[in-house]
Parts: sequence; structure tokens; C-alpha cells
Amino acid sequence: MTLKELTIHKLNKRGVDINSMATIVFKLQKKYNPKLLYKDCIYVIEKVLEKREVIQAVLLAINIDELTEQDMFDTQLNNLIKEDNSLFGLDEILALSIVNIYGSIAFTNFGYLDKVKPNIIGKLDKTGKQKKQCHTFLDDIVSAIIASGCSKLAHNQKN
Amino acid sequence: MTLKELTIHKLNKRGVDINSMATIVFKLQKKYNPKLLYKDCIYVIEKVLEKREVIQAVLLAINIDELTEQDMFDTQLNNLIKEDNSLFGLDEILALSIVNIYGSIAFTNFGYLDKVKPNIIGKLDKTGKQKKQCHTFLDDIVSAIIASGCSKLAHNQKN
Amino acid sequence: MTLKELTIHKLNKRGVDINSMATIVFKLQKKYNPKLLYKDCIYVIEKVLEKREVIQAVLLAINIDELTEQDMFDTQLNNLIKEDNSLFGLDEILALSIVNIYGSIAFTNFGYLDKVKPNIIGKLDKTGKQKKQCHTFLDDIVSAIIASGCSKLAHNQKN
Amino acid sequence: MTLKELTIHKLNKRGVDINSMATIVFKLQKKYNPKLLYKDCIYVIEKVLEKREVIQAVLLAINIDELTEQDMFDTQLNNLIKEDNSLFGLDEILALSIVNIYGSIAFTNFGYLDKVKPNIIGKLDKTGKQKKQCHTFLDDIVSAIIASGCSKLAHNQKN
Repeated sequence: MTLKELTIHKLNKRGVDINSMATIVFKLQKKYNPKLLYKDCIYVIEKVLEKREVIQAVLLAINIDELTEQDMFDTQLNNLIKEDNSLFGLDEILALSIVNIYGSIAFTNFGYLDKVKPNIIGKLDKTGKQKKQCHTFLDDIVSAIIASGCSKLAHNQKN
Repeated sequence: MTLKELTIHKLNKRGVDINSMATIVFKLQKKYNPKLLYKDCIYVIEKVLEKREVIQAVLLAINIDELTEQDMFDTQLNNLIKEDNSLFGLDEILALSIVNIYGSIAFTNFGYLDKVKPNIIGKLDKTGKQKKQCHTFLDDIVSAIIASGCSKLAHNQKN
Repeated sequence: MTLKELTIHKLNKRGVDINSMATIVFKLQKKYNPKLLYKDCIYVIEKVLEKREVIQAVLLAINIDELTEQDMFDTQLNNLIKEDNSLFGLDEILALSIVNIYGSIAFTNFGYLDKVKPNIIGKLDKTGKQKKQCHTFLDDIVSAIIASGCSKLAHNQKN
Repeated sequence: MTLKELTIHKLNKRGVDINSMATIVFKLQKKYNPKLLYKDCIYVIEKVLEKREVIQAVLLAINIDELTEQDMFDTQLNNLIKEDNSLFGLDEILALSIVNIYGSIAFTNFGYLDKVKPNIIGKLDKTGKQKKQCHTFLDDIVSAIIASGCSKLAHNQKN
């Protein structure tokens, strides 16, 4: 299994598939490009998921969420992560490692998605605050992947 | 005139006063803190506008917008700035110099405001795309100040 | 035990005390301020270690290093972290959450320290690449704390 | 003239050619890759200079420096830029728009170069602090281009 395959496999296991991300890309970018096709959105998400930095960030994020569910961090830190405390900001920082690479369109879309939490992002946020699951890092990473896909589309269109 | 006074004076001359920013802070943060008072929002905007990094970013942003109106940059660059091209991202980068200091709540609120463009931000964006005025850098800076005010309020509340 | 006390305790357990960081601050800043006292360097390190964002980053960094030593991450990720692979950049990203807050002097000093690795930073880097210990995240965090102390001193001096 | 050609032309006019940047890339990366050829360093600098974000940052940086020489900014701001005040950090921020795209190796090399200022970087810094010239923004941009070239080489080598 390549690192990209492992990444997609881990995302799937945590409830995130490529379609759920491509759907949001389509919704956000359709207004800027009426000719946009859904398969273009699948394509850019696939491309983003090939980048070394993205793969590393996804894997670390999911691993942290999983180890938090197993209470493997020091108690105080484990609690901060588990409750997705609004003053705990390291999940957004990890997402930045993805967003930074894709420029300022990725950056503003990320902030928007993190606040509005449409579809899969909202679902992760909600289930992550329930008893046994933790998606504190993953929901930001998924927002970052989608935001980067949007930026990639916008740049491709102009070229 | 102190640098802070100059900053507020320049903002006013470009159509931005403290109230127009505090109003958006109030609207965004009220839901997280029902006891929030409008004067608290004025207070945090005033505090943000005292920071050296913020003062420098505001002054440079407005100066760039003004010099663009006067066609002082190389033609190709002047055009990129004037039309607020969606693939020109240096305005967001300058805003980052403010947002970075105030942590991840500032960061996500900035992306949201830059996308949704409520009130004064939308007004700047609209008038900036008309014939004689240029607000390409200022609308992002104003979003960054408001987003930083929101972050400051959220942190103060918890302490 | 407060979170600050826990943070310093964890740092100590991993071989980092406040003196080892203050020493590097003194060395770097002495040339810009001949009147600089060693106790001023202790003071700024203590101040940096009080910040919520810094505390969170230190705790997460050390926890990740410890869990890597125990092979708790997925094998491929665990290997990437353990070997401190030069194309693994999430340790620098986590350090950014500290450096960003303290502005551009912190930012450039961080890059310098991460490359030159004087004293305690080099020691962490070296022992972290040996058999049982992992300091992949900690050495960057320590560089970030020192760089932020330098920035804080430079700003205080001018005020 | 394409935007890339304009960018290289402006760099040349301000005293920076591709060789002066490739030389530093070679010096920094040779130790990690003994087989590194000088022409590979030329190649990565050329590639970095093709990126839209890089072109925009170079052009804005040089324009700001030139307008500062002509005293076109508000007096207080013009003075801050001209003297390259150590607490003025917007030049580093603009450079970040380049460095961010190339990941954490670019990021740490940038901090290092900004502090050590070898060859062309030191020359720009020195002449920029003399009477008629201003290189406050350009020296950081040149450091960012070199640092990004280093990062690109490191990534290419592993692939």
C-alpha cells in the first residue's frame, strides 16, 4: 500500500470519502465557473491527496484523534483535545501546513469552511464532540483539503 | 499626532471608522457570549489598533491603495492591484501579519469575513472595484482587524 | 499543578531547563543591546512559557515524541517521525504556532536556530536521532521558544 | 515582455541576477548532495521565478522600494521603510508569501539567510541602508527565492 492509498484508507475509516469533499468543492466553485464539472472536483481532491505534505498532515491528524480516543496523551492535554476547546488552536495550525502550499484562495476558503462547517465537516464536528469519537484534528484537515482543491481549480481555470 | 492617531485618521479618510468594525465583532461574538456589550467590542478594536504590527500593516495597505489610484506602480502590477484579481494574493498576505498575532480564532474569522464580506467589508470591496477608488488591500486589513478583535474577546472571556 | 508548571516539568524531564534556553537568548541578543542582563533573558523565557498557545504546543510536541518512542503511531508515520526525515515538516509547523505570535524577529531567529542548532538544540537533535529517544518535535519547539524570547526582548527594549 | 521576463529584468536593474542567487543555493545544498551541479541550482531558481505568487511578490517588493526612494509614502511610513527598522516586519511577511508555498525547508532556510545575509543578500542590505537606495523589501524577497530553490532541490532529490 502506497502512502497515498494508506491516507485514503484512513480517511475512509474515519468516515470521509473523496466524494464528500468533492461535493463541497463543486458547491463553492460552481458560481465562479458555470462550466465546472463534478469530475474536475474529484480530480483536484485526488491531486491534493498526492502531495507529500498533505499525506503527512492527514496521517498525523487522524493518529492524534485516535490516540485521544484511547486517552494516550497526558490527562490535561487529552481533555483539551477531546472537548475541541475553542481556545485550543493546534488543529488549525496543522491544517495550515496544507493550506499554505495552495496560496491565499485556499487560506480564505479554509477560514470560511471552518466557521460554516457544511456537510461532512459539520458531521465530523458534531460526532467528534460525542462520547467515544474524537475528530478535533480531522475536521480541520478535511476543510483544508477542500479549500486547497478550490484554490487549485481557480488557478487551473486561469491558466 | 501619534502613529495610532494617524492610523485611525487614515482609516476614517478611507471610509472606515471604529464603529463599523465593532458592529461586526458584536454580531459575530454575541452568540458565544450573550452578556457581550457593544462597548466591549469598541474596546477590543481600539486595543488591536494600538499594536505596532497592526499600525504598520494598516498604513502600508492604505498607502498602496492610494498609490494604485494614482497609477504609481508598474503598469502590469498596477492593473493587478486595481482589478483586485482573484489570483493576486498579496493583500491577504499583508492581512496575515495582523491575524497571525491573534491566533487561530482570528485566522478562521478572517477567512470567513473575506468570503462573506458583511457591511463595511462588502462596501469597501464594491466601491474599490469602481472607477477611481482602490480598496484592494484595505478590505482585507479591515477583515483582519475585526477577526483579531473577535479572537481577543474570546480569549478575554475565558480568563 | 498549573498548566505552566506541568509544561516546565515536562520540559525538564526531556532535558530542557529554562537556563539552557535563556543562555541562547543572551548570546543572540547581547550584540544588539550591550546592557542586556542574563536575568532579562530568564524573564522573557518565563513570560513566553506562560502563553496559552505556547503551553499547548510544548505539551503536544513532547507527547508526540513520547508516543513515537513507544511506537504508538501507524508504522509508516512512526518511522517518519522517529528518523526526523528532512522532508517531514510538521514539527516546524507546530513550532510556527509559537513563532507567529511573536512577529517577524521570532520568525527569522527560528529559521536560524533550526539550521545552526546551537547548544541544547543541537543536543536534542543529536540524542533524538539515537536508538531510544525521539526529540523530533521538541527541538523545533525549543528553538521557537528561544526565538520568541529574542523577539520579546527586542520589542521591550524599544518601548 | 512576459511577467516572468519583467520580473527578471526588474531584479537585474536592482542588482540581482540569477547567478547571484544560484551560487547561494549551491553553497547551502552541496553538503546534503555531493553530486549537486551548479546548473541544477540555476534550474530551480528559474523554476521558482515562474510561479505566479513569486512574480507578484518580487514586483510589489521592488515597486515599494523604488517608491520609498522617491519618498512617495506618508512620511512616518516612508521613514520606517527607508531605515529598515528592526521592528518593521512587513518585508518578512511579503517574503512569506513565497516561502509558504515551498514548505518547511524553505521556511527555515529563509530565517537563516535573513540572519546571516551571505553575498548578494548582505550587499543589498548594506547598500540599501545608504543614502539614496532602498532594498528593505528586496533583500527579504531574494532570501525567500533562494530558500525556496533549496527546498525544491531537496524535494526533487528524494523523488
